[in-house]
Amino acid sequence: MTDGILTPDQILSAAQDVLRRYGPAKATVVDVARALGVSHGSVYRHFPSKTALREAVTQRWLDQAHAELATVLASDAPAGVRLREWLGALFRSKRKRALDDPELFATYVSLVTESSQVVEGHVADLVGQIRQIVDAGLARGEFAAPDPAATARAVFDAAVRFHNPAHAAEWSRPGIEDDFTALCDLILLGLEVR
Amino acid sequence: MTDGILTPDQILSAAQDVLRRYGPAKATVVDVARALGVSHGSVYRHFPSKTALREAVTQRWLDQAHAELATVLASDAPAGVRLREWLGALFRSKRKRALDDPELFATYVSLVTESSQVVEGHVADLVGQIRQIVDAGLARGEFAAPDPAATARAVFDAAVRFHNPAHAAEWSRPGIEDDFTALCDLILLGLEVR
Repeated sequence: MTDGILTPDQILSAAQDVLRRYGPAKATVVDVARALGVSHGSVYRHFPSKTALREAVTQRWLDQAHAELATVLASDAPAGVRLREWLGALFRSKRKRALDDPELFATYVSLVTESSQVVEGHVADLVGQIRQIVDAGLARGEFAAPDPAATARAVFDAAVRFHNPAHAAEWSRPGIEDDFTALCDLILLGLEVR
Repeated sequence: MTDGILTPDQILSAAQDVLRRYGPAKATVVDVARALGVSHGSVYRHFPSKTALREAVTQRWLDQAHAELATVLASDAPAGVRLREWLGALFRSKRKRALDDPELFATYVSLVTESSQVVEGHVADLVGQIRQIVDAGLARGEFAAPDPAATARAVFDAAVRFHNPAHAAEWSRPGIEDDFTALCDLILLGLEVR
């Protein structure tokens, strides 16, 4: 492969393969360059450091995992319906990744955990999306929430069993869908104007 | 020490010391007997196996961690006040143990995790206590909950960030108290009759 046609996305795909093969502890930029048949300088031209490359590949994985959330956010359904769908889309996306490819999932969980900046940006993004739905519900008179920012954070925290990888082992248990439904019911009762 | 005065509680205290010293992977019944100056047969007279001893010491730790919850349960305050106090007592008790003695906490978390029976009994006990408060709130006309059993489980799940050891690293963060208050507000809005 010539350096001329090397795109950031090709580098990130190669980096994911290398991470899967060697694990996050051993994978290096040289391994990524070798997999692409280029010099490590070609990789550094796009990503100035190993840390930058790891953060970019982690961010891409998080973005892919949450692609469906944007569709739910953009819907015109009542806020209660959208919040339930959004929480469900987040849960299903995380669960699918955890169950379909547990090794790659564990690799990314370890990568996400190693960068508090990535974690904080990720949480802020998700809480911000919940805030959008809460604000829409308030504007349409469907929700009541005295402190929308605190409420958005509380909804994120309340659903933690259904999106935080620390709970991934529970996601294939019988009854988990019922537990998820009961949690959404409780959250929506806490938000909806009665 | 003569075997005659050996009580289960003395054995459990010695077992905790041994676990702290050697770690759960290495601690043996012989170590516990040696620490007490008795034969391992004397320990086996009270606890028929190493597993039984480990489960008993784990159960004692859980019981001690939750001693304060019984006081809250027995109070005559409105159900909303009691639920908030109960969740707060659980959070504070877990956090105190995690921050005061992180090594012993990690030891017990690993012990609890190794016995799914202990975990399930523990969760059922806590969900049962929440159920008592929910039922009291329904009986007094303070709460509305179409399915009290599912609601009790949902309250337990909603508060998981504030009682599950998987989240212990978050318990000393600035803002954690505000997050906890916002979560309780949301849960109570979902339960209380308006």
